[in-house]
Formats: sequence, C-alpha cells, structure tokens
Amino acid sequence: MNNVPLKGVIAYPITPFDNNEQINIPLFKKQVERLVTAGVHGIAPLGSTGVMPYLNDSEKEAITEATMQQVAGRIPTLVGVSNLTTERTVYHAKFAEKAGASAIMIIPMSYWKLTDDEIVKHYDEVASKISIPIMAYNNPATGGVDMSPALLKRLLEIPNVTMIKESTGDIQRMYYLRKELGEDVAFFNGSNPLALAALSAGARGWCTAAPNLIPELNLALYDAIQQNDLDKARSIFYKQVDLLKFMVAKGLPRSIKAGLDLLEIGGGGLKSPIKPLSEREIAELDGILSAIENEVYQS
Amino acid sequence: MNNVPLKGVIAYPITPFDNNEQINIPLFKKQVERLVTAGVHGIAPLGSTGVMPYLNDSEKEAITEATMQQVAGRIPTLVGVSNLTTERTVYHAKFAEKAGASAIMIIPMSYWKLTDDEIVKHYDEVASKISIPIMAYNNPATGGVDMSPALLKRLLEIPNVTMIKESTGDIQRMYYLRKELGEDVAFFNGSNPLALAALSAGARGWCTAAPNLIPELNLALYDAIQQNDLDKARSIFYKQVDLLKFMVAKGLPRSIKAGLDLLEIGGGGLKSPIKPLSEREIAELDGILSAIENEVYQS
Amino acid sequence: MNNVPLKGVIAYPITPFDNNEQINIPLFKKQVERLVTAGVHGIAPLGSTGVMPYLNDSEKEAITEATMQQVAGRIPTLVGVSNLTTERTVYHAKFAEKAGASAIMIIPMSYWKLTDDEIVKHYDEVASKISIPIMAYNNPATGGVDMSPALLKRLLEIPNVTMIKESTGDIQRMYYLRKELGEDVAFFNGSNPLALAALSAGARGWCTAAPNLIPELNLALYDAIQQNDLDKARSIFYKQVDLLKFMVAKGLPRSIKAGLDLLEIGGGGLKSPIKPLSEREIAELDGILSAIENEVYQS
Amino acid sequence: MNNVPLKGVIAYPITPFDNNEQINIPLFKKQVERLVTAGVHGIAPLGSTGVMPYLNDSEKEAITEATMQQVAGRIPTLVGVSNLTTERTVYHAKFAEKAGASAIMIIPMSYWKLTDDEIVKHYDEVASKISIPIMAYNNPATGGVDMSPALLKRLLEIPNVTMIKESTGDIQRMYYLRKELGEDVAFFNGSNPLALAALSAGARGWCTAAPNLIPELNLALYDAIQQNDLDKARSIFYKQVDLLKFMVAKGLPRSIKAGLDLLEIGGGGLKSPIKPLSEREIAELDGILSAIENEVYQS
Repeated sequence: MNNVPLKGVIAYPITPFDNNEQINIPLFKKQVERLVTAGVHGIAPLGSTGVMPYLNDSEKEAITEATMQQVAGRIPTLVGVSNLTTERTVYHAKFAEKAGASAIMIIPMSYWKLTDDEIVKHYDEVASKISIPIMAYNNPATGGVDMSPALLKRLLEIPNVTMIKESTGDIQRMYYLRKELGEDVAFFNGSNPLALAALSAGARGWCTAAPNLIPELNLALYDAIQQNDLDKARSIFYKQVDLLKFMVAKGLPRSIKAGLDLLEIGGGGLKSPIKPLSEREIAELDGILSAIENEVYQS
Repeated sequence: MNNVPLKGVIAYPITPFDNNEQINIPLFKKQVERLVTAGVHGIAPLGSTGVMPYLNDSEKEAITEATMQQVAGRIPTLVGVSNLTTERTVYHAKFAEKAGASAIMIIPMSYWKLTDDEIVKHYDEVASKISIPIMAYNNPATGGVDMSPALLKRLLEIPNVTMIKESTGDIQRMYYLRKELGEDVAFFNGSNPLALAALSAGARGWCTAAPNLIPELNLALYDAIQQNDLDKARSIFYKQVDLLKFMVAKGLPRSIKAGLDLLEIGGGGLKSPIKPLSEREIAELDGILSAIENEVYQS
Repeated sequence: MNNVPLKGVIAYPITPFDNNEQINIPLFKKQVERLVTAGVHGIAPLGSTGVMPYLNDSEKEAITEATMQQVAGRIPTLVGVSNLTTERTVYHAKFAEKAGASAIMIIPMSYWKLTDDEIVKHYDEVASKISIPIMAYNNPATGGVDMSPALLKRLLEIPNVTMIKESTGDIQRMYYLRKELGEDVAFFNGSNPLALAALSAGARGWCTAAPNLIPELNLALYDAIQQNDLDKARSIFYKQVDLLKFMVAKGLPRSIKAGLDLLEIGGGGLKSPIKPLSEREIAELDGILSAIENEVYQS
Repeated sequence: MNNVPLKGVIAYPITPFDNNEQINIPLFKKQVERLVTAGVHGIAPLGSTGVMPYLNDSEKEAITEATMQQVAGRIPTLVGVSNLTTERTVYHAKFAEKAGASAIMIIPMSYWKLTDDEIVKHYDEVASKISIPIMAYNNPATGGVDMSPALLKRLLEIPNVTMIKESTGDIQRMYYLRKELGEDVAFFNGSNPLALAALSAGARGWCTAAPNLIPELNLALYDAIQQNDLDKARSIFYKQVDLLKFMVAKGLPRSIKAGLDLLEIGGGGLKSPIKPLSEREIAELDGILSAIENEVYQS
C-alpha cells in the first residue's frame, strides 16, 4: 500500500518579506496559524506561492523550521524542495525530512529542457536519499517542463514517489491519470480554476493558495464532493471561481499578499523583481472579495 | 423567456455513402431510427460528424428531408446549415426551417479569419431570415475561428440565437459562460472527452456522435448528473472515456463508420479524401468496444 | 528534369464583386492587365487572395477563363483548384488544364484533419487526371493542415508535383526543404513578411498579392537578390515590410481591395461575410502607401 | 552615440565540470583560448551555454575571473549575470564590471511571469548600479518570458541598455526591431538556425556556441555578409545548418560537450540533472561533423 499522507485541501502559505526584502518569520507563523485554525487538511510551505525559487538556502531553511514549529504536528506538511541542480534538491530534501516534514514536493525545474531520462534520474537520486514520500509536480507554466502522463507513470514506479500534482489546466490529463493508473493513484489538483472538474474527476486533494483568503469556501467545495452532492458543489464553486481566476491571472504571491492586506491580516512585502499589484488591480480584487463576503458570509 | 427546444443527449448521425461516394439514404434512415429508438433527446444531422462541408446542396437537402421523415416529430431536430458564405448559409437555414427543423446550428466557417463584427453580421443576417432558434457553435479545430466568450455574449443578444455549443476542450470556457451569462444560458458540451466536467459545470446538454455506438452509457451519464449522483456519473464516465478519446483522436466520421461496421449495423462508405481507419486502428477500436461490452452490458 | 514553369514574382489578383455580390469580370480583367503590364513573372487567379473557397463552380470557371483571355500567353498562369472533396478538385483541375493554365495549385483544404496518407492519395488522384504541373501549397493558417517537410517530400515523388509553396511563416522550413531536397527543388515563398529571408534562402519565387499595390518594389527586391546585391535587397525590403505586414494582418482580399480603391484603380466589392476594412484601418493603409510613395517613387 | 562594444561572431564557451561536478577551470581556459585564437569577435561566459543558472555564486565568480585572465583584453567580453532576484542580479553585474567585463547580458529570468513594469524596473535597478553597457536578452524558451518588441523599445530608453539579443526564432521580430528602432539599433541574433536570415536582416552580430566546434564556418558566414556576397553566404550557411539545428534540438551544453570530446579537445563533464547525449545522438553528431569536415576543410 502506498504511503500517501495527504488529502483534501492543502494550503500554500506565501513567504512575507519586510521592508528590506528579508523574510518576516513572525508574520509567516501568524499566517500559517490562521490556515491551521481554519481547518485545512495540510500545509505546503515553499511552493510557487511561497516564492521558493527566489529564496536562498538559509531563507528556505528558516521557513521550513518555522512551519514545523507552528504546525506542531496538528496536520501533515508538504515542503517544496525543488532546485535546478540535483545536488541542491537532495540537500533541501534531506533538510525537510530531518525537520519533520510529512512529505516533499518536487517540480523538475528547468532552464535547459530536460529529457525524460534526466527527469527520472533526478527524482530517483533524490528519492534514494530520503524515506518520506514525494509528490511529483507538473506545471509547465512555471517550471518550464511538461511531464507527459507516460513520464508521470514512470516516476510512480520509484517507491516513495506516491503522489502527483497536476497543474497544466487540462482536465483530460486527470482523466488519463485516473483511467491509466487506476483508482488508487493519488493525484492532486494544482490548477485553481479547475477545482470543480478535478474533484469531480476523483482528485485526492486540491493544492491551493486560496485558503489564505477564503478557507471556508474551499473546504465547503471539498466537503460537498465528499458528500456526493454535485448540485451543492457546483453552487459553491461558482461563488469562488472569480477569485480563483484572478489569483492565477495576476500571480499567486501578488494576489494573496494584496488579499491579506485587504482583509487586514497583513500580507507583508514581496521580493524584487516581483512588485505589488497596481491600485486598479487591488480595487478589482477588493470587489471580488466583497462580492463573496456579501453572498456567502452574510447569507 | 428564451426558446430552447433542446436538452440532454443530442445525437449526431454520420452521412453514409455508397461505393460511388453517393449518399445512402436508406442506411442513413436506419441509423437515425436506431438513435431515436435508443432514447436520445435530439437528432442533429449535417454536423461535423455528418461531413456537412463535404456535401453539395442537393445532398444536404436530401439528408435534411430524410431526417424529418424518419424522426417524424418524436424528438427535436437540430440541422447544421453552416457555409463559408452568408448567402448559402441563409439558403440552407431557410430550407431547414421549411423542412421542419426544431433549430439550426451555425459554426462561422472560415478560410479568411473573420473579425468579430463580420461574425455578428453573419449570424444576424441569417437570424433575420428565419423564425426557429439558432445554436452558435464554437469549434476552432474544425471551423478555424475561436469565438471568445465576449463574442458569444454578443451573439446571444440576437433574439433567436439562444444556444451555445462549446467545443474548445477548455472547461474554463464553460465556467465563464455560466458565471458571466447566468444560470439561464443554454450552453451545450461539444467536446466528448470533457463530458463529465461539462455536465458537472451545468451544461444543458451534450452534443455527441457517441450514441451511434454506446447510447446507453451516454444516456446513463446524463441521467446520473440529473439525479445529483456524482459518484455514479464518475463511474459511468470512466467506462466510456477511452472510446470518447479515440473518436476525437481519429476523427468522428471515420470512427463511427468503423464502429457501426464492427457492431454489424453497417457504417457505409466515406467520401474522398477521407478514408477508412487502418486495420490496426480498427483493431484498437474493436478492443475498446469489447472492453465496454464486457464491463457494462454483461454486468 | 522537372517541369517548373514558374519563377520570380507570381502575382495573385483578387476577385472583385459588384453591389449584388456577383463577380465583376471586366474589373477583374483590368486588374490582371495592370499586373501583366507591370512586369510580374506569373499570374495566379483563384488563390486565397482571390477568395476561391467562397466561389461556386461557375464563378471559378468564369475567373479561370477570363484570366486566360486577358493574359493571352504573355506570362505563365497558376490556377487554384483546391476543394474539400477529391472529386471537385479533380473537376476543377481538369477545367484549368483545358482552359490553358500553365500549372495548378492545390492546398489540402481540411475540415476534418487529414492523415498524411489521405493527403498523398488526394494529390495522387488529381495528378493522375492531368498533365500540367502541380504546386503543393502549405498554409495551415487558412487550410487547417500543416504539411510536414517529410510529407512534402512524399508529394514531390508524384511525377507532376514539381513545386512547393511554403506559407507557415517559419524560415527554418525553407532551410530544411533546400537542404533536404537539394538545390533543384522549386520552393516558393508564400509568406509576405518573410520575403527577404525566403529569397535569401534560395526560394525560386515569391507568391504574393502585393503587386496589386506596389509591383515595382516587389520586382526590385527579386532583382536585387538575383544580382547578388544583399545590401540593396535589404534596403528595398525595409521600404515595403510595413505594407506586407499590414496585408497579412488584415487579410489579403480586404487589404488589396482597399488599396486599389485608394490608388483609384477600383477594388470592387467583397462577398459576405467578408466586409471592407474599417475607416481607421483604411486610413492606416493610406498612411503606409503614402510613406512608400514619398520614399520610393519621388526619390 | 550609443556604447556598443560588440559586433560579429560572439562565442559562448561551455562551463566544463570534473568527475565530482566541480568546475574545471584549466579546461575552461583552454577552451576560451581556442576561441580567441580562432578569431571570434567576442567571448560570452556564463550564458545559457555556460549553464549559468546551475552555478552557485562562487562558481560564477571563478568563471568570470578566469575569462578575464585568459582573454586578457584581446577581444571584448560579455558576461551573463541574470538571476531570479534583482538583488542577486545587481551583485553579479557589479562583480562583472569590477572584473573587467566589456558588457553584461541580462535575461529576465522568470518563475512567476513578470509584468512589463517589473521587467523595466529590474533592468533599471541593475543599470543604475554599473557603468558598462547591457545587452537585453529575449529567449522565452529558456527564460520563460517573451519580451515584446514594444517592451524591448522601452528597455532601450535606459541609458546603458544599448544592445538586444533576440532568440525567439521568429525572423519577423528582427525586421520589426530594425524597422521600428532604426538602422542604429544594435540587435544580435541568438537563434542559431536563423543565422542567415538574421544577418541578412541587418543583425550587428551572432551570439553562438557553434564556434566551439566550427569557428571557421561561422566566421566565413559573417564575412560573406559583410562583403555583400549573398550567394557565398547562402552556400556557407547550408554547409553548417545541420549542426546548428542539432545543437539547438539537443541542448547547447550537451551538444558542445559531445562535440569537443569528438574533436579530441575535451568537453569535460556536465552537472546533474543534465546528462550527456546518448550513444546514438553522439553518433549522429559525429556524422554531421564528419560531413562538414569532408565538404569544407578538405576542399
């Protein structure tokens, strides 16, 4: 039986910075606590949302340790450890395991397009150095490599690669994974605007930054699917789809930071060259959040 | 209130030819009768499946009339009347209305890429000449034009354009249509492998050639969604997804013709340059149909 | 030795219509005469520029005959005979041969995506029915099929398929054709904004609608390349590149019609759903033509 | 007058590694010396070819210093300093200037898609901290961002951004740059298989890894264009196009490493996850190099 420690709504915190573009650990811990308290089923630091590729080694280590301290075993953790080189990926994978992560996530980052064989060797090398499970993450829009379903199938033959996160935005990929790999394959949705379709298709969970802003709606969608109530799931999904699309269109770190500021929780600063949303974009986000508030929380 | 005469599973018959590449009306009627008897909710001759663009005017008229005779009002009919020129589109639209069609379908066929204004004028000109409702059909893969959701919204302002058939294969288009145009908009799924996602999203119906081969499974999927039973719908969908993908990958006319031959109903001939599937492809289709037979009809 | 009756600047006339959207033969003949008088090396009626797919059989025949009468053997002719069905393509190919065409051009028009084998059979069937040479035309943007260099190589094995017109806009295709098929292969450029790169690559000729508006500049570019004067060719090319880009961006029939009106030659009308350029677009074209006039013809 | 210290054939060395995946400085210096001796017009360490994104800070600094020592002012140098964060880009830009680089090259590396404003600020921040000129490098295939011609125009308004390297593979981009920005704009070709088209279009130079393997042919192509001898340039280009295509298809570091091994100069090792070409690919490269040798150097 495969070791799959995650399911449900996996929340991705941002990495907040101070005015000198140094990481703000107290604010990060506060944001993680909100997510745990809201009832999400897992926490995933150092994802795309957490601008992992923009952090140096000591920043990554500080975020990993702060997550473990704050979550304190209440829910499982999934730590991003991807790096362009295999050597650095192994280093961060071992650090995450030692720190207490439940699982790690690896996207095959790419400057030079990797061959399938290179990707398999990369995962195999990392997997052989740790004992915790690995989630293979496919997201050509950020990582630059599109792993075919056939390649994902090869990766799942590595013993501790037990989970797949699919973010291509093509629902047919999920149908293929389920049909080809069987009901037991643990695939997760990583494409926010596809959440209804992915959970309807049988996804084990939803990897998302949205719980930073609307945790109740995200959890309610997952619950409705679990209860086999499609009509309710559809209704809840259409309440949140505008926000999900906005987040993806504008970039997760910028959008979540702006949303946390609007909600008066505090989103902290970003790291250059990434800059805050424009005034106009913030006003658009405010309108979307207000519409959700009116429709959902006051009804 | 909009005039929307269609919902559910709309079946697309092929146009069978004889050995001289002349249309075979008796075989066509036999195939239509099978679809009506199987319980589909509508019949759509002269679609892409029916190789409408490859037929001359008299062939189109013969197919339209044969459909009306055979269906005889038992279920609604949706007749394809698309043409490169506005003048010919008007001609066939009027013919379909006079013959008794419930509605017509128009895809803005394109050799020269049409502007949004040209497309609106094209629909408007046709709509002004008939009284029956029009389904606007978006399928860039065959028609060569991708109508944006904003353009589809403009088309829906023409009084008798009351239905949209979306075949881009992007589920987010359907979410947008539903969210932007409201619950009352009648959008139909035209992308077979997206059937589960589209019906989960709230599609009014599914325009498909699949009932030529597996009508029970297509209808069972629609029914499960109507009964708000997502688990059942998902299970039924995964039984048929391999066939839906095969049909799209190999082309609907070639696939349905081969399938009808395998089922010993008779698919007739194709019109050059379109040729039958290869022996290897037919064997693959046979394997898919046999797997469905074993799993479904004998359980 | 292959039979290649064409080289140099092959001019594509439009098909002008009257107020009732009927073809205007006297105006067509006047436009053809201008092209011949200007010194172009070939005339190609019923191309994309001539809106061939929008014409009915008798219109196509009238245009073919009018071309032969007006050109009267002064320069070679290349007649478009493409059709969705093989049967109609054969019909028009035979008509063109009988009317006196030097060669015919065939693009594998597609509603249903054709397989490579279907395309080869289509060309083979037509080629077997005529004796004049065939130009195989690759233009996925209009025809919907992208013929790979490997497929084009197969087509060239058919005895009277002796010419290729490449319009993908990818200069590397031409490098491949020349490198793979040898110096003797007759490939023609069909992508106007690539004219300098294509002729530099060794293209035998340039298939273009531009001579309707700026024949001197088109011919001067070809001549400079023939004279091995790259500096001159580059200078002449940059004088016309804005017009070449405009024509492609706005569509050849609309652009040439508007340009002929601006030059007071008369472009006639278009056929619905294709409509004239907007006032703003016509003003932009006027600006481009005036800039060329100032720079070239008065210097 | 703009400060443009580069023109002609700018050669990109690889970064060779030893068996422990540590950089091999003596081998690097040997390879740089070969390039200078061969007569190239500039040396560009830490490019894509030099796997810059895969190196840590001290490795980058060692390569920069080794380049300056070996070139010793004989020809200009162009050092790559790109980084995901603005802070690190500034750091490496200042290091390169202090080390004696003639210019630096910056590609806006991207994990999160940057807005145009973010890219301009990124370049502006770096430019304000140094005095040497900057080449803005556009290569969506590796960097993940496609800078529009309009954005490149904005970048050129920053005083020391004086050069553009275009690697999209679309020759029309170069025509646009030349037409829009005038004859004085210094644009360089970064797409190897486009070399003939780009130099014909007026490119100031060609940024390429090919001189590691065939410097004479690369220089001869540039010289023929300078001499306005298109026929000769075309002939020389077709001799090398197969190698240029192979290099791009298989990846520059893998291809150059394999080629240097085949030429018995020694390519050193690669850094994981990048692995050597397969035996079959090496044999294909050997065939291409042998064909060039036979045709060129023994004639």
